[in-house]
Amino acid sequence: MKEVKIGLLGFGTVGTGVYELLRKNINLIEEKVGLRPVIKKILVKNLNKKRNVIIDPHLFTNDINEILQDPEISIICELIGGIEPAKDYILKAFEKGKEVVTANKAVLALCGKEIWENCTKRKRFLGFEASVGGGIPVIKTLKEALIGNEINSIIGIVNGTTNYILTRMLENNLNFKEALKEAQAKGYAEADPSLDIKGIDSAHKISILASLAFGIYIPASEVYTEGIEEIELMDLRFAKDLGYIVKLLAFAKKRKDKIEIRVHPTLISENHVLTSIRLNYNAFYITGDFIGDVLIYGLGAGKEPTASAVVSDIIDAIEYFYFGKRPFIRYPLTKNNHLIKLRPIEEVEFKYYFRFSAIDKPGVLSKISGILGKYNISIASVIQIGRQKRKGSVPIVMLTHETKEKNVNKALQEINKLDVVTSPTKKFRILD
Amino acid sequence: MKEVKIGLLGFGTVGTGVYELLRKNINLIEEKVGLRPVIKKILVKNLNKKRNVIIDPHLFTNDINEILQDPEISIICELIGGIEPAKDYILKAFEKGKEVVTANKAVLALCGKEIWENCTKRKRFLGFEASVGGGIPVIKTLKEALIGNEINSIIGIVNGTTNYILTRMLENNLNFKEALKEAQAKGYAEADPSLDIKGIDSAHKISILASLAFGIYIPASEVYTEGIEEIELMDLRFAKDLGYIVKLLAFAKKRKDKIEIRVHPTLISENHVLTSIRLNYNAFYITGDFIGDVLIYGLGAGKEPTASAVVSDIIDAIEYFYFGKRPFIRYPLTKNNHLIKLRPIEEVEFKYYFRFSAIDKPGVLSKISGILGKYNISIASVIQIGRQKRKGSVPIVMLTHETKEKNVNKALQEINKLDVVTSPTKKFRILD
Repeated sequence: MKEVKIGLLGFGTVGTGVYELLRKNINLIEEKVGLRPVIKKILVKNLNKKRNVIIDPHLFTNDINEILQDPEISIICELIGGIEPAKDYILKAFEKGKEVVTANKAVLALCGKEIWENCTKRKRFLGFEASVGGGIPVIKTLKEALIGNEINSIIGIVNGTTNYILTRMLENNLNFKEALKEAQAKGYAEADPSLDIKGIDSAHKISILASLAFGIYIPASEVYTEGIEEIELMDLRFAKDLGYIVKLLAFAKKRKDKIEIRVHPTLISENHVLTSIRLNYNAFYITGDFIGDVLIYGLGAGKEPTASAVVSDIIDAIEYFYFGKRPFIRYPLTKNNHLIKLRPIEEVEFKYYFRFSAIDKPGVLSKISGILGKYNISIASVIQIGRQKRKGSVPIVMLTHETKEKNVNKALQEINKLDVVTSPTKKFRILD
Repeated sequence: MKEVKIGLLGFGTVGTGVYELLRKNINLIEEKVGLRPVIKKILVKNLNKKRNVIIDPHLFTNDINEILQDPEISIICELIGGIEPAKDYILKAFEKGKEVVTANKAVLALCGKEIWENCTKRKRFLGFEASVGGGIPVIKTLKEALIGNEINSIIGIVNGTTNYILTRMLENNLNFKEALKEAQAKGYAEADPSLDIKGIDSAHKISILASLAFGIYIPASEVYTEGIEEIELMDLRFAKDLGYIVKLLAFAKKRKDKIEIRVHPTLISENHVLTSIRLNYNAFYITGDFIGDVLIYGLGAGKEPTASAVVSDIIDAIEYFYFGKRPFIRYPLTKNNHLIKLRPIEEVEFKYYFRFSAIDKPGVLSKISGILGKYNISIASVIQIGRQKRKGSVPIVMLTHETKEKNVNKALQEINKLDVVTSPTKKFRILD
């Protein structure tokens, strides 16, 4: 049976997962595809590191050239992560005529244009399923299954860490710090959790998905991003009482010729299917003009699910490699970048949840609503939770009708300056 | 720009959808794949039929040979449905060296072995995404995205008609007939709804998915099948009070070397994500050894979603066609059929929901539980809804611990013969 030789760059969690998957399921794969994918070399920093897996030590090398220069190796899996040297290795692999599979979202979200253009120029294959949503086949769905559709929007719960924290806060009455600590103890959050909790990881992922969906490169730096680190349990509970669940959502939407791309905590009505995505699960809710709504849900991280995505890409890469020149590729960037028209968040209209912290005395509500009125912000409902005083102030929760973000920002700035308002107003957008 | 010529067989709902999709999104598709899929001929029965779509009448033919014999046509889309002449046309298309895309679940579920073997022998491509789950990319997910996984189970809500009926019954207090009538009025159910409500359509679909997941052909005739036509509103409500939602589920599971394949109404615990799949939506909940759980959800029928799936397959077929000989194909049937070992439902263990109809007098429960005890059926809880008399009898609802189906059938047979039992006991299996 024909063997296809693979080089792994990196042997951390995902690399180990890929190795273990190929060891366990190699016969199953061979039965289905008629070829045997075999790992020939693995690039590691430290050849002598003790590893928790039984593996022939001769597979390891600390010299990238042993892989790049090996004509027998046709597929390179970049599982190092980060920008450099990952990017350099990917570009060199293309140059050497090798197909590339990567699990690296940062390199695509920040340097995607260069990588994709290089891939096309060299007529190579780039698999990146594992870069977004772990094992969930969202890339394949967008690139292949929905190829006949104009994509209208992608709404995703794309970060398991923050979804875990928000779920545990609400369901177990934990504050943010407690839930974060628990997520760290369970291995769902890093020691330095900022990439996750500040929404940066989500911004990277939605940048990749938006590029694929709309055919233009939108770097992560263009994504409006808010995290969850300032979310208080109180707001999750008030929202729940009003029939909403708060999730960190990533959005990529096309309306007319403009694209909106953003990451922020959002109130979702309890009957929406996205509210059933709990704990460290991820989900992608995609709307296309023919398919309607489709949701894909699963584990967005972890050794085994990510290995599943990498191996799916390896098989696609092998197919590509054996066909030689493909008559066409499903290149994500079909349009010129100067056609990007992003709609700034200030121009987007939302319904809002506000929580004002105010002194509990007559006339406060009238002052606040006066300012809202001045900026044409129409109130849908007000809940004054009078008896829950904190440091002499009470929370007033308000839902609004649709309003431009710009107006809301101006109004809240003015409201926060009122002497009856004791701390900055909390604002959440509502998913309609 | 290079054109690829397609022949459509049939111009009903799905055919019209494919035509409309290609008309609306042809430029988008061309941008992505660099080729222009063009419908050259459409086989119809009646050339003079008035159609609700603007289309060049010269596209139509009523002679299959005008399509099969046309060397310019490389892709055939079989959208006729049913067994013959669909099967004959598919086999002839392979013979003529054409790739085939079909939306026909019946022909695959009943004659799949012959078709797939023919496809392999002739080294052709068969796309069948639209045969299961409308636009939902469940076939692509199983065939490509999960290729590295050993599939443990597929649990699906695979029929929109029955899911719509069950949702409306529970949420709007309708009985079965009322909900069916409504589904018919909305176009979600056929005038003769038997294929859907008897679970036959679901059996066809799970047969196709199981073949793909386990690599052996399991014809629909091997699927244990129950429908929903005898479900009473009362049971949906009792189940709901106990924390369960009743759905018609299709199962394909592999445990050790045996496969279970079955379709029946099932109680699902309310916190399971499958309970959030309402109305005419479909969902596939797949478990693999590396990916863990993944759910795909969307519209399982309808003109536009199904057209989306057909076009996705057309693009894959074009790719295949242009590569000429593929070094390998992802053939669904990898194992010999004599390796099939199906576990009969009698040998499967479930938790059960029973509703007994009994005369309201002392000793009844003791008689019933005596018989259950005799067959080793252990009771988890009993709810006697004493005041809700119907024709002199009261419902007694009972949940059991895990028990073999065989024992349950014997026990219920005996219980139904008791003179205090007024009508046959209702039995539902519970998803654990």
